Amino acid sequence: MKKINNLKLRIIPLGGLETIGMNITAFEYEDSIIVVDCGLAFPEDDMYGIDLCVPDITYLQENLDRVKGFFITHGHEDHIGALPYVLREINVPIYATKLTIGLIDHKLEEHNMLQKVKRKVVKYGQHINLGAFRVEFVKTNHSIQDAAALAIYTPVGIVMHTGDFKVDYTPVYGDAIDLQRFGEIGKKGVLAVMCDSTNAERPGITMTEKKVGKTFESIFNDHHKQRIIVATFASNVDRVQQIINTAYKFDRKVVVEGRSMVNIISIASELGYLSVPENTLIDIEQMKNYPDEKMVLITTGSQGEPLAALSRMANGIHRKVKIQPNDLIVFSSNPIPGNEKAVSKIINELYRQDAEVIFQDTHVSGHACQEEIKLIYSLLQPKFSIPVHGEFRHRKAQARLAAEVGIPKENILMISSGDVLELDENSACVVGKVPAGPVFVDGLGIGDVGNIVMRDRQHLAEDGIIIVVMTLESGCGQLLAGPDIVSRGFVYVRESESLMDEAQHIVYDALSDIMGRKGTDWGKIKTTVKDTLSDYVWKKTKRRPMIIPIIMEV
Amino acid sequence: MKKINNLKLRIIPLGGLETIGMNITAFEYEDSIIVVDCGLAFPEDDMYGIDLCVPDITYLQENLDRVKGFFITHGHEDHIGALPYVLREINVPIYATKLTIGLIDHKLEEHNMLQKVKRKVVKYGQHINLGAFRVEFVKTNHSIQDAAALAIYTPVGIVMHTGDFKVDYTPVYGDAIDLQRFGEIGKKGVLAVMCDSTNAERPGITMTEKKVGKTFESIFNDHHKQRIIVATFASNVDRVQQIINTAYKFDRKVVVEGRSMVNIISIASELGYLSVPENTLIDIEQMKNYPDEKMVLITTGSQGEPLAALSRMANGIHRKVKIQPNDLIVFSSNPIPGNEKAVSKIINELYRQDAEVIFQDTHVSGHACQEEIKLIYSLLQPKFSIPVHGEFRHRKAQARLAAEVGIPKENILMISSGDVLELDENSACVVGKVPAGPVFVDGLGIGDVGNIVMRDRQHLAEDGIIIVVMTLESGCGQLLAGPDIVSRGFVYVRESESLMDEAQHIVYDALSDIMGRKGTDWGKIKTTVKDTLSDYVWKKTKRRPMIIPIIMEV
Repeated sequence: MKKINNLKLRIIPLGGLETIGMNITAFEYEDSIIVVDCGLAFPEDDMYGIDLCVPDITYLQENLDRVKGFFITHGHEDHIGALPYVLREINVPIYATKLTIGLIDHKLEEHNMLQKVKRKVVKYGQHINLGAFRVEFVKTNHSIQDAAALAIYTPVGIVMHTGDFKVDYTPVYGDAIDLQRFGEIGKKGVLAVMCDSTNAERPGITMTEKKVGKTFESIFNDHHKQRIIVATFASNVDRVQQIINTAYKFDRKVVVEGRSMVNIISIASELGYLSVPENTLIDIEQMKNYPDEKMVLITTGSQGEPLAALSRMANGIHRKVKIQPNDLIVFSSNPIPGNEKAVSKIINELYRQDAEVIFQDTHVSGHACQEEIKLIYSLLQPKFSIPVHGEFRHRKAQARLAAEVGIPKENILMISSGDVLELDENSACVVGKVPAGPVFVDGLGIGDVGNIVMRDRQHLAEDGIIIVVMTLESGCGQLLAGPDIVSRGFVYVRESESLMDEAQHIVYDALSDIMGRKGTDWGKIKTTVKDTLSDYVWKKTKRRPMIIPIIMEV
Repeated sequence: MKKINNLKLRIIPLGGLETIGMNITAFEYEDSIIVVDCGLAFPEDDMYGIDLCVPDITYLQENLDRVKGFFITHGHEDHIGALPYVLREINVPIYATKLTIGLIDHKLEEHNMLQKVKRKVVKYGQHINLGAFRVEFVKTNHSIQDAAALAIYTPVGIVMHTGDFKVDYTPVYGDAIDLQRFGEIGKKGVLAVMCDSTNAERPGITMTEKKVGKTFESIFNDHHKQRIIVATFASNVDRVQQIINTAYKFDRKVVVEGRSMVNIISIASELGYLSVPENTLIDIEQMKNYPDEKMVLITTGSQGEPLAALSRMANGIHRKVKIQPNDLIVFSSNPIPGNEKAVSKIINELYRQDAEVIFQDTHVSGHACQEEIKLIYSLLQPKFSIPVHGEFRHRKAQARLAAEVGIPKENILMISSGDVLELDENSACVVGKVPAGPVFVDGLGIGDVGNIVMRDRQHLAEDGIIIVVMTLESGCGQLLAGPDIVSRGFVYVRESESLMDEAQHIVYDALSDIMGRKGTDWGKIKTTVKDTLSDYVWKKTKRRPMIIPIIMEV
């Protein structure tokens, strides 16, 4: 990539486009870099043993002196989750709204980093000057409170980054999205829009969060003799508020269960984003003092996460809550793609225990559908469209919408993670590529599990391993002990004794065959063992276990 | 379980209820056993390295002399797929309709078993007498032709097994479901209904297959300048027929791609279930002789299967078809639960290559929705309801429907695989349990990968393996060589040299410490190595790789 071009803006998504969730985008102009969001991604099925994915920040590290700060649009894990990992390398201030900072603080505290990092609470309408940039926080709605779009004022024009958003004219808490300000900024002239694509394949609009409140009322009304357990996203404080309100109205006590749920509710309450009527919230230990029909549990685990509270309840391993035949479980959520089977497993388990389950019409999305996306384009009327947030198919769907509302096709920019997009008032063009994509976190290790290790894990997972050990005499290479064969994850050895015995004989014969010969070195011995055993095992089982020959010399 | 009770019917599902797909049910009366269906299941995500699951037939093997035959409802893998495995142990005749037998024949031929097994083609309305049973095949509709419900006449009454079915008043091929006969049998008095639950959570009715034909017409009409690639289920011959009809109407040639698609189409054509206008079907090699807009490809891979034709096309590794920017790909299918992500991956890939993709309103289900299930209950008015086919949640949904149409709750029997359900004219009761559940097939091995092997594979997949080898002197137990440490799937060794070096030192020190002592045997040495290394690795990495100490003696 050629050197930094004066008088051009660079937009560099370091994640979030190929690896969904890991949202992080650098904005660069001359000697200033600011970064929008810093999320993590949860591992895909084929990322064996990986706990989570964080972005590759090589480019930021190489330009450390120019990085001025992080601007965070909202407090979801896919926008804040990588901060503790990234801030260790790049310690610059964080700017975000109050609840978002509250959630970040909690996260930094868990990593013992709270004292080391500067955080600044920003109000809607406030502008932050940082290097060549000025950033304004604009009110939006989402499935977490205090979400913001960022109007990024750059020397070449305004870039509007919507973050994750929806249009909710009647939100549960606070104001509706500031459409007036969107219009006003649009009137000034917007260079580019980076808009949420998650729901861009869905026609129409996303319903208001308040609709779920109405559904709760009718559910509570119809089930006044049952204990009610509601599973939802821990971070959806407005949803929790509505459950609490309904519980209060129907004279029920509320227990909150699941670590992340308890954390977020306590943060949200402290900061004033959740108001709980007195004597409504009770401790889980007190539950036994109330009859079932006077209780509501709000719990994590709506995505079928095997370690979350609901899953433990369904599987009978929760220490304090046992599912009873008269329970009503409400899934106030939709399965995120990929979680369908896990959710179904829990629903099956709950039905098996004769509980009642409701999972329809009990959720609304936090993302804008097609008509809302078109509204944003109509208000902003940008020169360029850069669809973000969502899989390629969703971003492509937004590209079609952008074209429909009149953005010229050549101004709709489908970029990938790592692309360096250079813009000025008139043109936009990808000029280079920087490292991007997921870095695997496994236990304490960040990045020490790469493709080779992953390939080995997959191989081990599919066919297991056979280890062949032998001891040779130093110098003459005489076989002193072995070959011994040990296997794991291949066949159940007690039932396959003859297979393993024969394997040992075959390796022994092959070794005897080559041992005496000239030019027999360790490499040759290992290759012979591997090939001989591999052929035999394939013939007998049609499997390809990993084969590791180990030679010791005495 | 007490001995076989005279004058009672036993229904024993050996699979299909807990392990979805592996449909097989034994019906037993005195010295007669007949078996309905014999399907396989595809492995779940946590069944590492498993190719497929077949039913546990221990119970049938133990009662081999009483097993009279298999009755197969239709030709889908989850109803016929285990036959080659099961027939090796239990070689009795198979009864099914013509296309179903055609598909079974093909399967047996692949396993070199065609000469060894008796198959009998049965017509709708025909009755087969076998031991204590008489079985009548009744016409139904499904996403494969020649599907049948089975009216099983037993000494204690009629059991109606619907198989997988839907009600299609206007099928593409052949007749609508024989509702008259359902009514007639209902009038005789039905003891129990075993009815398909797959869509029991869905209100309304499943649309006719012909609706998809109309959609194809409008798609072909709107895209007359593009090559069209349609991905669908290989076994849905009616769907293929409609694509061929539409292609013919729009003067396009048809290429069929994907092994299973080619197989089924050739079987269906031979048997007269598919009629192809002359000069419509061409070989894939001839494709180059026609312009894109005169071509339709029908292909496998609609579920995102990574080795199927569509996936290979999307990933640019198909030898004969390359996706081009002007291509239109139609998914004539819905993702089966669990396949959503795989399908999405392919859609993303196709969009990336600038193809157009259509995946909405291009499919109808092959299973009955709520109103159809209620219709069947109303026609049959059984004494007992035994919901089958589907996850527990779906069977529970059918149980609710059965209750709605008037079956007393105590007569709705939610049974599990392996349950022995005993019925007579007045009562039904689970009296025992037989082995049931999946037997894993991995390569040539059937059942040699059990829980221990699977646990090892999972462990290896998540954290890899560390092997510690050492050679001791026979007798005195002096350490002659090692400890050497080899790891796979743990960390990338080149970047973690110091970790592995230190690990070796720590093991060496621990060994030195105990070697001299009294009572140090191999077991003690192995435990020491394992514990020491495990503690060290956990402290450094928070991971728990499998640790295998191997001692050689010289």
